[in-house]
Amino acid sequence: LHSWVFHLCPSPVTPTRRHNSRSTSLIQNGSINVVFCKGPSRLSTRSHTCGELCSRHIGEEVTLCGWVQYLRQDLFVILRDFSGLVQVLVPHDESKHELRNTFCGLSVESVLMVKGRVKRRPEGQENKNMPTGEIEVCAESVEVLNTCRTLPFEIKDFVKKSEAMRMQYRYLDLRSPQMQANLRLRSRLVMKMREYLCYQHGFVDVETPTLFKTNSWGIEFLVPSREAGKFYCLPQSPQQFKQLLMVAGLDRYFQLARCYRDEGSKPDRQPEFTQVDIEMSFVEQGGIRALVEGLLQYSWPEEKGFVTTPFPCVTYEQAMQDYGVDKPDTRFGMKVNTLSPRPCPRNTTEYSAHNRALKTHWCRSDTHQEPLPLTSCCLASLLQRPLLGKLRLQCAELLEGHGVRVRDPAVFHFLWVVDFPLFLPKEDAPGQLESAHHPFTAPVPQDVPLLYSEPHKVRGQHYDLVLNGCEVGGGSIRIHNSAQQRYILQNVLKEDVVLLTHLLEALECGAPPHGGIALGLDRLVSIIVGSPSIRDVIAFPKSFRGHDLMSNAPDFVVEEELKPYCISVVWPSVEADLCHPPCCSEH
Amino acid sequence: LHSWVFHLCPSPVTPTRRHNSRSTSLIQNGSINVVFCKGPSRLSTRSHTCGELCSRHIGEEVTLCGWVQYLRQDLFVILRDFSGLVQVLVPHDESKHELRNTFCGLSVESVLMVKGRVKRRPEGQENKNMPTGEIEVCAESVEVLNTCRTLPFEIKDFVKKSEAMRMQYRYLDLRSPQMQANLRLRSRLVMKMREYLCYQHGFVDVETPTLFKTNSWGIEFLVPSREAGKFYCLPQSPQQFKQLLMVAGLDRYFQLARCYRDEGSKPDRQPEFTQVDIEMSFVEQGGIRALVEGLLQYSWPEEKGFVTTPFPCVTYEQAMQDYGVDKPDTRFGMKVNTLSPRPCPRNTTEYSAHNRALKTHWCRSDTHQEPLPLTSCCLASLLQRPLLGKLRLQCAELLEGHGVRVRDPAVFHFLWVVDFPLFLPKEDAPGQLESAHHPFTAPVPQDVPLLYSEPHKVRGQHYDLVLNGCEVGGGSIRIHNSAQQRYILQNVLKEDVVLLTHLLEALECGAPPHGGIALGLDRLVSIIVGSPSIRDVIAFPKSFRGHDLMSNAPDFVVEEELKPYCISVVWPSVEADLCHPPCCSEH
Repeated sequence: LHSWVFHLCPSPVTPTRRHNSRSTSLIQNGSINVVFCKGPSRLSTRSHTCGELCSRHIGEEVTLCGWVQYLRQDLFVILRDFSGLVQVLVPHDESKHELRNTFCGLSVESVLMVKGRVKRRPEGQENKNMPTGEIEVCAESVEVLNTCRTLPFEIKDFVKKSEAMRMQYRYLDLRSPQMQANLRLRSRLVMKMREYLCYQHGFVDVETPTLFKTNSWGIEFLVPSREAGKFYCLPQSPQQFKQLLMVAGLDRYFQLARCYRDEGSKPDRQPEFTQVDIEMSFVEQGGIRALVEGLLQYSWPEEKGFVTTPFPCVTYEQAMQDYGVDKPDTRFGMKVNTLSPRPCPRNTTEYSAHNRALKTHWCRSDTHQEPLPLTSCCLASLLQRPLLGKLRLQCAELLEGHGVRVRDPAVFHFLWVVDFPLFLPKEDAPGQLESAHHPFTAPVPQDVPLLYSEPHKVRGQHYDLVLNGCEVGGGSIRIHNSAQQRYILQNVLKEDVVLLTHLLEALECGAPPHGGIALGLDRLVSIIVGSPSIRDVIAFPKSFRGHDLMSNAPDFVVEEELKPYCISVVWPSVEADLCHPPCCSEH
Repeated sequence: LHSWVFHLCPSPVTPTRRHNSRSTSLIQNGSINVVFCKGPSRLSTRSHTCGELCSRHIGEEVTLCGWVQYLRQDLFVILRDFSGLVQVLVPHDESKHELRNTFCGLSVESVLMVKGRVKRRPEGQENKNMPTGEIEVCAESVEVLNTCRTLPFEIKDFVKKSEAMRMQYRYLDLRSPQMQANLRLRSRLVMKMREYLCYQHGFVDVETPTLFKTNSWGIEFLVPSREAGKFYCLPQSPQQFKQLLMVAGLDRYFQLARCYRDEGSKPDRQPEFTQVDIEMSFVEQGGIRALVEGLLQYSWPEEKGFVTTPFPCVTYEQAMQDYGVDKPDTRFGMKVNTLSPRPCPRNTTEYSAHNRALKTHWCRSDTHQEPLPLTSCCLASLLQRPLLGKLRLQCAELLEGHGVRVRDPAVFHFLWVVDFPLFLPKEDAPGQLESAHHPFTAPVPQDVPLLYSEPHKVRGQHYDLVLNGCEVGGGSIRIHNSAQQRYILQNVLKEDVVLLTHLLEALECGAPPHGGIALGLDRLVSIIVGSPSIRDVIAFPKSFRGHDLMSNAPDFVVEEELKPYCISVVWPSVEADLCHPPCCSEH
C-alpha cells in the first residue's frame, strides 16, 4: 500500500506553463506482454510501480506504466502512477533519436509504458525529497498508450480549482495525491474494521435491501414500481432489517450500508451516504461501547496515532450543562459556567460585538479561570444552552484566528454521550411527544414505570459517539418486548402501528434482547484525513444541490419512460415558477 | 465461526406436536450482567455459545442465551443459538421447584438465559450425532428474556413451508440451520475475497453512487428528484464509474456493488442484486482471468473442495458448436455432433417424444459414443444450436430422472468463454447492430480493421465465466481510445453520444488501458451452497413479483408525498384494467 509514498512526496518540479505538445498518434493496442510480478504489479503489464523503485533495483530492467507528470524537452520525464513518481532519463545517443522524438512530442498526462534500466543518479543530482530520488530509469523503449488533450486544470494539489470544476472533471480531480490518499485510507480503514468484526467478534456481513417501503415521509427517496400508485423507498438506514436479523437469530450482524436521505433544500446535502451498521444480540450498552472502542482502536490508521480506550462518557444533561451542546468538542476546555445575575454595567456599548464575546469571559479556559459577572440583560439570551454552545465554538475560532492555539488538529477526542431523553416535545406541537432518536430505542430500565405516567421524563438507552465535536455514531439498546413497543408507538407517540405490523409481530416470536450502533463512515473518514467536507472522501459525490455535475444527473427523461411506472410529471405553472425547468441551467 | 456445528447437527429430537405452553410473563430487562469472554461471546451477556460446549468444559459454570428448540416437560430443554444445540437438564430437587415451573411453562422459541454447570452425560445417554452430545448443562437459574407466541410454522429444515409464508415471516425462516449456514458462508466468502484483492493484489475498495443518470431505458428504476421532470436512476452496474476510476489513476478498484434491474414482467426477478465488481489498469485479458481464478481459489469454502486453476477456456464459436449454448455445463459430456442429412426412416412415429429424444442419440455421452443417423426432416429444426443446447440439458435431466448419474452435484466446473462477437443484429431490426455486451468492450486487436468494413465480424475482448452451466461473471478489456469509442457509438451502434459525453471526454484525458469483470455474487453463492434459488442466499429477497411480502413493499403513498417530486399517479382506466390496483390483493 503505497499511498504514503505519494503523500509524503512534494512535487520535485516547479509549476510551469502547460506543455504545448503535438499529440502523437502512436497508439498501439494489444502489443503489451503480461509480466507476472508481486503485489500491485502482479498480473499487470508493468514489472514495477513507479514509486517503489529505489537503490535496491539498480541494474534491473523494469517496465513502468504511468502518466507524464512533467517533461523537460529531451532531458527527462517524470512518470507518475498511484504509488509515486520516478525520473525517466531520455537517452541521447544518435541511434535512439526516434525514441527521443517520441518523448519530445508528449503532452502532460499522456500515458506511457517505458522499458528501461534502473541506475543510480549521478552524484550531486539525488533528490532527498523524492522517495525515488536516488535513482532514475534509463529509457530503452517507450510506448504511448494514450495521449492527453489540454486539461481544464493541472493535476496538482496546490492548484486551486472551483468546486464545480472539480466535480465536473472528477476523474482528473481524483488524480491528485490528496484525493488518492483519502480513498486509499478509507479502503484500508474499512478492511480493518471488517477484520475486527468478523475475525475477533464473530460478526456476519449481511446485505439488506435498499428497495423498501416508505416509513418517514418527506426525507426518503421514492422509487415508482410498475404497479400504479405503489412505490418503494430508499431507506435512511437498515434499522428494521438489522433488528429482524436479531429476531432471526443471526446473533451478530454488520454491514457497510448505503443509506439515503432526501434533505431537499439543505445546502450541503449528500443524498447517499455510508454507515458502518452493527447489531448484536444478548448485549448491553457497555458491550456495544466496548466493541466500538475496540473497532476504532484496531482500524485506526497507524500514521494518525493511537486511539486510547475506553472513551470518556458523559450524560446528555452534563454535556448540555458544560458545553451547551450534545456533541461537545472536548479538545479544549472553556466549559460553560453556571450563571447568576449581577447588576448591569453602564458602558457595555464600548465593546465591539467581537470583543465583547471575548472579553466578558462568559466561559472559562486554561487562561480564563474566573467567570466574570454577567449582566441580567445579557443573561436572558445566554441562558439558552445551544446559543452558549455555539458561542463557545465561535470563541475558540476567534482565539485561533488571533493565533491562540485552542484545538490541536492532530488529536482525536472521542466521547460517549448517554442518557438522552427518550422523547422530546414535537417542534410544531409541543403538547405531543416524538422520539428523540427513533421509536425502537429501549427506555433506561429504572425509568420504565415513568413511561406510563410521565413519559417526557424517561431516559433512553441511547448512546452517541462524538469525535472532535462531530457526531460520528449513534445507537441504542432496542425494545425487544412487543407490548412495550406497541404501547410506545400507540400511546406515547400516537402513531399508526399498521405500518410496523411486521416488526411488532416479529417481537412476539422470540425476539432476543439486542442493540446496536451505526457509525457515519463518510464523516469519520473526513475527520481522520482532516478534510472539512465529506466530498473529499467520496469518490463521486453530488454537488451542494444534489447534482452529479459530471454525468448531469438527475436528468430529464422522455415521457415514454414514465409510462411503465404509471406516473407523469406535474410541471409547475410558469406564474409560480419564473424559471421553467427545461430552460434553466443546472450547474 | 460455528455454523458448521449447526449444519452438521441433525436435530436430536423427533418432530412433535407443538407444545401447548402457557406463556410466562417473567420478562426482566436490564438485570443482565455483562460477562467478558472470547470470540462470539465477548462483550455479551453469555459466557459461551450453546454449540461450543464439549467435554473440555465439564465442571465449568456457564451462562447461555438462546431459543427453546424443544422441551420435554420437566426433564430437559434443548437450547439453541446460532452455533448449535445443547441439552439443559432441569433439576429435580424439591428446593428448585420454582425453577422447574419456569421451564415447564415455556413455549417453543422462547428466549432464555440459563446459568448452570456443564457435566458429562450419564453413560449410555451420549448422543454421537450431536456435537455437544457428550455433555449437558445442569440448570441453576433461568431468566426468560422473551416469550414466543404460536408460530406460523416450525423452525426446522424438514418442515415444508410455502414460499410466500417463508417470505412473510422471513425472520423465522432465517432461523433454519440451512439459511443460517448460507448467510454465514456468504459472509466468509466475501471476506476472503476482500483479503485476496486488498492484501495480495493492492486493490482499493471504492464505493460508487447508486443515484445516477438514466442510460438504458426500460430496465433501470427511476428516482424522482425535487426538480420537476428530472430523475435519477438506480444503475445496473457501476460500469461507467469503474472506468472513470481507472482514468482517475486509481489503478485497481473493487467493490461489492449493489446493482438494480427492473425486469418488470420477468417471473423470477430480483430487483436488486450484488456483484463483485473489479477493474484494473495496465492489464490484458490473461491478467484478469488469472486474477479471478486466484480469487475463487483463495476464497472458496474449504468444505466445498479445492478449486483447480487455470480454468479451461473455449471460444464462443466452439461452445456453440459443442454445446449449443455460450454457457455450457461441462460437468458432463454429450457434446453436440456435427450433423449430416440421411434418408428418412418410415417409422419415426413408433417413438414417443421422450424416447425419441433419448434414442435418436443426437448427442454423445460416455455411454453413447456413436451418433445415430438423423433424418433430414428432423435436421431442419435441430440445426438451431440453442435448441440443441436445451435438448442436451433436458436429456441430462431425463437420464438423471431415470437414475443415471450424469452431473455430480458436488463438483464445480469453471469455464471461460472468450471471443464473443462484439456486435449482434438487433432483434427487432436485424439490419442494425447492437453491442453483444456493452458498448465499452474493446475489439480483439487483430479485428480492429474490420470495424470499418465488416463490423459484424469483429470479435470483442469479452470473457464470460461459467460455473456448472450458469454464467457467474463477465467482463472485458475496455476501449481506452476516445476516437475508437466515438466511432463505435456513432457509426456502428448509431447511438446518441451526448449521453456519454463525460466518458468520451474522460478517454481524451489520458485514460490508461484497462479492463475488468463483475461476478454475480448471489448466483455464485447459490451454486456453492447447492440451492436452486438465489433467494436462499439473500437475507431479505423480494418475491417472484418483486414484492417484499414481510413489510408489504412497494406500497401506496399519499398524494401529498408525491408533490415535492412533481409527479402524480396515472391510474389505469377501469376498462383497460379490470382489477383496479387499490382493490387487488398483493400477496
